[in-house]
Formats: sequence, structure tokens, C-alpha cells
Amino acid sequence: MFNLAGLVAVGDEVLSGEVINSNAAWLAQQLLSVGIHTKWHMVVGDDVTAISQALEWMHQHVDLVIVIGGLGPTADDLTKDAVARYYHRDLIVDSTTIDYIAAHHGRNIGWQESVSRQAQVITGATVWQNPHGQAPGQLIEDVSGVTVLLPGPPRELQGVARDFLLPWLRQGPLSHPVIRRTLTSFDMDESVIAHQLLPLLSGQHPKTGIYARPGQVDVRVESSTSPQQWVLNERAVAWIKGRVTSRLYELTHVDRTTVLIETLSQRQETISAMESLTGGLFMATLINVPGASLCVAGGAVAYTDRIKALYGVPVSILEQYGAVSAECALAMAQSIRQKYGTHWGVSTTGYAGPGGGDSDNPVGTFYTSVAGPKGSEVRRRVISADREGVREAAVEMALTLLWDMLGLSESYARPNFDEINTR
Amino acid sequence: MFNLAGLVAVGDEVLSGEVINSNAAWLAQQLLSVGIHTKWHMVVGDDVTAISQALEWMHQHVDLVIVIGGLGPTADDLTKDAVARYYHRDLIVDSTTIDYIAAHHGRNIGWQESVSRQAQVITGATVWQNPHGQAPGQLIEDVSGVTVLLPGPPRELQGVARDFLLPWLRQGPLSHPVIRRTLTSFDMDESVIAHQLLPLLSGQHPKTGIYARPGQVDVRVESSTSPQQWVLNERAVAWIKGRVTSRLYELTHVDRTTVLIETLSQRQETISAMESLTGGLFMATLINVPGASLCVAGGAVAYTDRIKALYGVPVSILEQYGAVSAECALAMAQSIRQKYGTHWGVSTTGYAGPGGGDSDNPVGTFYTSVAGPKGSEVRRRVISADREGVREAAVEMALTLLWDMLGLSESYARPNFDEINTR
Repeated sequence: MFNLAGLVAVGDEVLSGEVINSNAAWLAQQLLSVGIHTKWHMVVGDDVTAISQALEWMHQHVDLVIVIGGLGPTADDLTKDAVARYYHRDLIVDSTTIDYIAAHHGRNIGWQESVSRQAQVITGATVWQNPHGQAPGQLIEDVSGVTVLLPGPPRELQGVARDFLLPWLRQGPLSHPVIRRTLTSFDMDESVIAHQLLPLLSGQHPKTGIYARPGQVDVRVESSTSPQQWVLNERAVAWIKGRVTSRLYELTHVDRTTVLIETLSQRQETISAMESLTGGLFMATLINVPGASLCVAGGAVAYTDRIKALYGVPVSILEQYGAVSAECALAMAQSIRQKYGTHWGVSTTGYAGPGGGDSDNPVGTFYTSVAGPKGSEVRRRVISADREGVREAAVEMALTLLWDMLGLSESYARPNFDEINTR
Repeated sequence: MFNLAGLVAVGDEVLSGEVINSNAAWLAQQLLSVGIHTKWHMVVGDDVTAISQALEWMHQHVDLVIVIGGLGPTADDLTKDAVARYYHRDLIVDSTTIDYIAAHHGRNIGWQESVSRQAQVITGATVWQNPHGQAPGQLIEDVSGVTVLLPGPPRELQGVARDFLLPWLRQGPLSHPVIRRTLTSFDMDESVIAHQLLPLLSGQHPKTGIYARPGQVDVRVESSTSPQQWVLNERAVAWIKGRVTSRLYELTHVDRTTVLIETLSQRQETISAMESLTGGLFMATLINVPGASLCVAGGAVAYTDRIKALYGVPVSILEQYGAVSAECALAMAQSIRQKYGTHWGVSTTGYAGPGGGDSDNPVGTFYTSVAGPKGSEVRRRVISADREGVREAAVEMALTLLWDMLGLSESYARPNFDEINTR
């Protein structure tokens, strides 16, 4: 039974900051779903001594060390050397891995030299073949501790973790999986929510946290699945819902955009958008969902009044109210809906900064509107964030407004996603 | 003189993977510019014991420990407690900080309770006031080692680091700053470049690395500014340029999109885009640059043939060649240029996957075109990446094509950026 994991990501490009360590974030979330807490992440360069020091230290404090990356074919891929040294074992070329790579990936330029190094494994390791790349995952267990090696490219890491690591962890006796309920507000600032929740945040059980990003504040309540903790957790969630004076969404394992695209596709309804403030970001968010072409007709980025008018926004509205106004947002949503002949039309307009804004609508003000079969709505918000943050917040507000107008529930869980909790 | 730094980011939301640790990446790059290498990054939860263990360990191996985050007002902000414990010092409320916060940030809900905790400093610390938030930075130096505390929100971290930490580091005797030259290909795969550079990659001096992301491969050559290393570095760069059979761009401290927007604005030329594959991402990338409204008129997301035709793409082209073709890409760029009345028109079309594609144009194939005052060009590429990766690669290719057609140089440095190298 593992309780605490330590993650070690290896690579000069991560250490020097050219690449952000998103692998550790992904893996920590997966581990939590099987009841394992991560105690530390580390990033180490391509340097055998530094990797070895990190391994020594991690193994003193956690019962599962996962090393990510540094398994490639080049001379600076040194993870295996450091792990072999830690266990006082040798590296051997694994013929099964060579055969697997040959069968799955063909032979490209430099095949032989690349493969023979990536097929090296640590003596006695359990080898997990990698369907998305060449270097396999490895598992080494002995009295010195348990170490797992995973390839570094995100798709390879995720594939090997899903196919081998997580199933292997689930086989053993599990600690109580962690239940985390997250309530999200898309229209209130962190400081206001923190103030409303003060009595709860000062307590210790259940563990409660607030995390804010532009346009979104998450309130997280976390406990194990033990019966007593579960009851406290439920009580805390009910108390929060009664206390916070803002709509709170509970979207368990749900990507909102995916749900929106699926809902529109099932209803055979189509959508278009005219974006000013968000400049294509809303449409790009929709289209990132596979299958979006079933319901997304397209959009327009109308960054100037001239282009807005080209799509049918009345010049009188632009003159009377200006481009950053509820009236203009409504007209934009209605115009694009009509122009593209879609069921739904969405718009965004506002001041992202750093320039622009006026006394009525300072920098950080935005409007989004959704026009649908039964009418149109518009929402306004003013937030304090940088240029990119204001834009992200506007995309979140547009998604929220569409979510509400489609009649989707505030509590939305993807069924059977988290299979571990039903074991 | 500091040579090695260790970065410790504190926060459950980072540890559990809800937030990605981008702060460490930013800070590691800044430190390198003043000649300090980062040996490790770590992420630690909101837990005094775990933070203390990390501090103890880091101070054994590096000569500068920078702790990021956990300086906020709530009960789970424990960084100061752990650092004070490490130095066997006390926490005291700093009245200068209270006055600074009052003067700069006004009084909001919950002001008093929030501020008094954020104005706590460690006895004897140098206090760096924070213009972007409340919690100040702190610097503690004694025989136990040097520790710097920085606030966690990225803007606050960056503000305090720029105003105080980096100037303070520059005051002392510096080690040789690191010179890193990065050559980038936007149209070749990593495996091909790695093969062409094999003789160089197996050597140790200068330090050379390859890093690939969708649509972009960076070749990095790094050395200190000592005269001998500098010569080796120059030689390696010349050798690489002669060896790689692809155009290599050297963009020193340059964000390409910013240069494109500035160039267009200076020339008083305007731009529009019709996007299919990238669904608004190209336009969103342009508009993310402050001042983009000077030259960006807008764009269209034309995800269906019907919408493409609406903007003037001839139906005959769609029927004869299909939407994923050089002919369609050209027509899209020309049509949007004409429709929006801009100097430049850009287009993207392709198959992002996972569905779609055919034998001529498999998933991962894309075309981008740029139509300008002197004619039009189109480029095709096929890459192996996921849906998001194909899109990002297409945006990179569109930026590259625009860069070339605007006559911008393959070597482009922002003058006087890296002031440290001229000291």
C-alpha cells in the first residue's frame, strides 16, 4: 500500500524553464484518484549526480518514487544510469523491447542506434512497453524502495501510466481514495468568496481550499472516503452552497466545452460567434473538442467597428452606445447568428488593456451575449487581471452563459468516470 | 557570488496538479541571465514539515534557495512559519509593510485581518515591498544559507523579482553569464535534425540540446561568456547552420508575434485571417499583443464549406480540390483579404484529427497561405501530433510564412534586451 509519492522530472529544458513541467500536474491528479498523495515534485537536469541525489532524498521520505523523462536515445538521457546506480544494478539491452519497437514503429533514420539505447532496461525491472513512443516504462522494487520510470513526452507518459502504472497501483490494497468536491463560481472575485467562507477556511476538517484564476474561483473540499470524513465533507459542501452569494457549479470530471459541444451535437443545433475582445479564443476553445465540426459553423473576429458593421451590427448602436456595451454585445450575437444561419450566436466585447477603457467601462470590463432560439441574454463583468486574463475570463463567461441558456444543470458529473470510487 | 539556486514552490494547488508550476520556469530563465544555474525545482504542499524538509535539503546542496508562494493571508499559507523555523527566528508584524499596503491598495473587505498576516516578516529579513499585491518579498542571509521569499501569483512574483531580486543579484560579483544561442526550424522534424547534428550532440562542449514542440524544433548551444567558450560556441553555431538542411531562425529574446504586429503597425498595413483548421487560434495569437488593434482588422472562422463560400471562396475550388488543399488555402487568404479590405490575408486549413484525412492528405496535414500586396504564397506540411499540436504547428507555420513575406530577417535580436551581457 502506497500513501506518499514523490515525482522527479528529468530534463535540462524543464530545469532551465524552456518547458513547463505539466507532466507532474497530470500525474499528481491521477495518483490522487487512486488514493496516493504526492508529497513533492522535483525537476532535475540531465546530470547523473543531481538525479542520484534527488533519488536518495526522495526515497527517504516517500514510498513510491516516479521518475519522468530522460529515457531517450541521446547522450544526455541519463535517468536509467542514475536509477541503476541507486539500486546497484546493471543496464542490459532488452530484446523483447527491441522487437516491440520494430513491430510498432518501423525503422526510420538512425533507427538502430536510437533503439538500442532506448531498449536498455535495469536488471530485474518489470518492463512496460510504450505504444506511443520507443522508450518503455520500468518498475523496480526492492528493499531500497520502489521506483517507476516513465517516458517524458506527455502522450507517452499518459499512455504508459494509463495502461500499466494505474492498473498496477489499483491491484494492491488501496488507501481510502480521496474525494474532492469542487464548487466553482464564474462571476465572483476570490476576496469576496474568501470572506464569505472565513469560518470554514480556518478549520482543519475537511480540508478546504480556494483557488482563483481569471474568471473562475474554485472552492475545494477534500476528504478521504471513510464514513466519518464523508459526512463532514457533505455538510461542508451544503454549508458553502448556502453561504456563497453566487451561483456555484459543481462539474465533476467535466470539461465544460466538451459537454457544450456534445449537447449541441445531440440536439442537432449549430453555433457561431462574433468575437471582439477574445479575438478568436472562444471559437478556438470550442473547436479544440474533437467532433466540434458537427455543430460549429464558424465565427468572425470583428476587431474594428467597420468589420462589426460588415456583419450587420447597426451603425446606430455603435455610435450611440459604443462597441463596449450591452447593446453592442447583443447585436453582435444576433447578427452572427443570422449571418451564419445557426441556432446559437455568441459574442464578446470589452477592454482587455493595458490601454483603452473609460470611466463607465474601465479596463477589465467585458460583455458577452448569447442569442438563441428563444431569445438573447447579455452579461457584464469587471475584473482585475492582465490582458490575457481578461480574455480568458470572457471566454469562461461566454461558456457559462451558453451553459445556462442550454438549460444544463449546475451540478454535472460525467458518470462512471472515476471508476476507482465505486470499487 | 551565487552559482547554484534551488527553487521551492509552495502550494497544495500546484502539488495536486490543479495549477502548473510556470513560476519556476520563468524564474530559472531570469536567473540564468545573471549567470546562476538552477539545480532543482521543487513543489511542496501547504505543510510546515514538508516545507522545512525541503529547505534543509536544498540548503545542503545550493547556495541560494528561493521559495515561491504561501505568503498569503489564509491559515494554509505557511511558508514564513517554515522559513522562520529553519533560521530559528521569529515572525513579527512589519509596520512599514502595513503602511505600504494601505497606501497602494486601499482597504477592501476583510482588509485588517488579511493585511496583518501578510505584513508578517521574519526577524532581520530585508523586506521588498510588492507593487502588484500585498505580501512583500523577503531576503534572509546568515550562516545557515541565503533564502529569498517571493509571492506566488505570477505577476507579483515577476514584479518583485524584477524590481528587487535581479538587481540585488547583479550587485554582487557575478559568475560568467550564460550565453545561449537558439536556432529554430519551423519546417523540419526533430528526428531528422537530431540525425543531421549527431556528431555535435555526442560531444560535451559547448553544451548542445534539441528541443521539439509541435511545429518547432529548437537547437540550443550554450556556454559561458569566457573567451575560449565563446569561440567554441560561435564555431558550433556556424557548423549547425551549414549542416541542417532547413531554414534556421535565430530569434534572440524575440516574440515573433510581437515583431509582426510592430512591423505591420509601423508600415501602417492591416491584416485579416480566415481560419479553418486553427479555428481562431491564429487570430487570438495576434490579438494577444498589446496594440494589435492598430493593424488587426479581424478574421473569420470558416469551419464549413458553406461558410467558406460565404466569404468568397469559389465553390468550384471546394468541389475540385476540397477544403484541405493548396488551392483552397490560397483562395481563403485572398478572399478574406478582399472581404476585409486589408493589406494582408492569412489562411489555415487541414486535418487536426483524430478523425478525417485521406490518402493524399492524412491527419496532420495542413496548408497555410498568406496573400499580400505583391502576391500570394502557400505552404504545406504533414506532422505527427495530437489535435492541439497540429493546430499549434499550423499557427507557427502561418507566422513563419508571414514573417518571410514581410521580408524580416532570419536573425532577429531585440537590441539591448539582455543588458547583463554588456556590463
